Amino acid sequence: MTKTNEPRPQPVPLQVGMLVYPALTLLDLIGPQTALSMHGQTHLVAKTLDPVMSDSGIAILPTATYDTCPRDLDVLFVPGGMGTADAMEDTATLSFLAARARTASYVTSVCSGSLILAAAGLLDGYRATTHWTSLDVLAAFGVQAERQRVVVDRNRITGGGVTAGIDFGLTLVALLRGETAAELTQLTMEYDPRPPFNAGSPETAAPEVMALARGFIEPVYSRTLAIARRQHAQLRT
Amino acid sequence: MTKTNEPRPQPVPLQVGMLVYPALTLLDLIGPQTALSMHGQTHLVAKTLDPVMSDSGIAILPTATYDTCPRDLDVLFVPGGMGTADAMEDTATLSFLAARARTASYVTSVCSGSLILAAAGLLDGYRATTHWTSLDVLAAFGVQAERQRVVVDRNRITGGGVTAGIDFGLTLVALLRGETAAELTQLTMEYDPRPPFNAGSPETAAPEVMALARGFIEPVYSRTLAIARRQHAQLRT
Repeated sequence: MTKTNEPRPQPVPLQVGMLVYPALTLLDLIGPQTALSMHGQTHLVAKTLDPVMSDSGIAILPTATYDTCPRDLDVLFVPGGMGTADAMEDTATLSFLAARARTASYVTSVCSGSLILAAAGLLDGYRATTHWTSLDVLAAFGVQAERQRVVVDRNRITGGGVTAGIDFGLTLVALLRGETAAELTQLTMEYDPRPPFNAGSPETAAPEVMALARGFIEPVYSRTLAIARRQHAQLRT
Repeated sequence: MTKTNEPRPQPVPLQVGMLVYPALTLLDLIGPQTALSMHGQTHLVAKTLDPVMSDSGIAILPTATYDTCPRDLDVLFVPGGMGTADAMEDTATLSFLAARARTASYVTSVCSGSLILAAAGLLDGYRATTHWTSLDVLAAFGVQAERQRVVVDRNRITGGGVTAGIDFGLTLVALLRGETAAELTQLTMEYDPRPPFNAGSPETAAPEVMALARGFIEPVYSRTLAIARRQHAQLRT
């Protein structure tokens, strides 16, 4: 099958701005970053250039600050994580996201990153998704929360929890660079998943596993839900 | 279904030693690290504590050196990456791996990390796997290279390319902590993959995509193959 609409080889490298903040989930970031870095430059953007500690205990070095991040991004991206609640209340972070979203081609997230986009007012009137435990937190912002692996609504692209970032990243590469580029990315990453168990979604996990997962997530869930309700009420008054 | 053989809650935290080296593929590391860090302590072990740059352009901070890494590890792990060839020739790295492998419960890798294990002599007489482009490099060491997502042979556990690290990590959690713990890990990571394309393996990718991927990998492939042949010849004389 000839693909006459494919972009030409050697296009201008993508400019991707990826937010990093304390206690982010690193896999939310690294799935998409691995895919997108094959097609451009990924900027890890934080308040300062100091190391940022992930919620699994790995420290990474940012490459840009809110001031030095390029202005015109192809992609603005926000990962989720145990630190989502703090980021939702951080005015400097929300201002940075709102400013770059004005000129970004795509405004995107994985996992609970969509709660931070919502806190910045960037999902008003859009359909979006998040980690399965956070769908009603997203809904508390008035966002049309959908239980999907990846939701594309105009230029808002949001992925589900953690590993959904790989499906999200390939979807985004296809939109920006065409299907052949996305398939090359998939083959290089050998993304041919073979989960050894069938517990990856609330629809398939056993009840006792669901209970353990909800217990694990509960502190973040309660806090983000309270923030979402308060912020939504403030926006409406 | 009652699972009477499940380990008890709150077991002793796992001690996991994960090699980091210049130009590693960060996703090879972060898939397993995300899964294993829910059940213990993951040490990022390098020659020094200086930041290590990944092959996708992210710098991470090691947490231990070859000297300070704990002696008795539950898991010794090696990721792959564009820097594999240099690591295969680094005697300090190979000595560290050989020393810790003597007492580790499991000696493991993802992607081209198995080439580094093979260079350290740790896969002699074992079945193992690697990224699909590197299977004949692994075979050049005399290792029984298999095209599988995850290969378990006694205490050697090896995963295929990049994203296989997630399947590998869940397999390892099940072996170390039981199936319920692995399912909880899968649900928390929302590992319910929905690849948007079907190009994740050489069996399914289109010929033009295969050609592009081989071209992309060629420099690493040629160099690691030459090293494997030379090291294997030296071992036999």
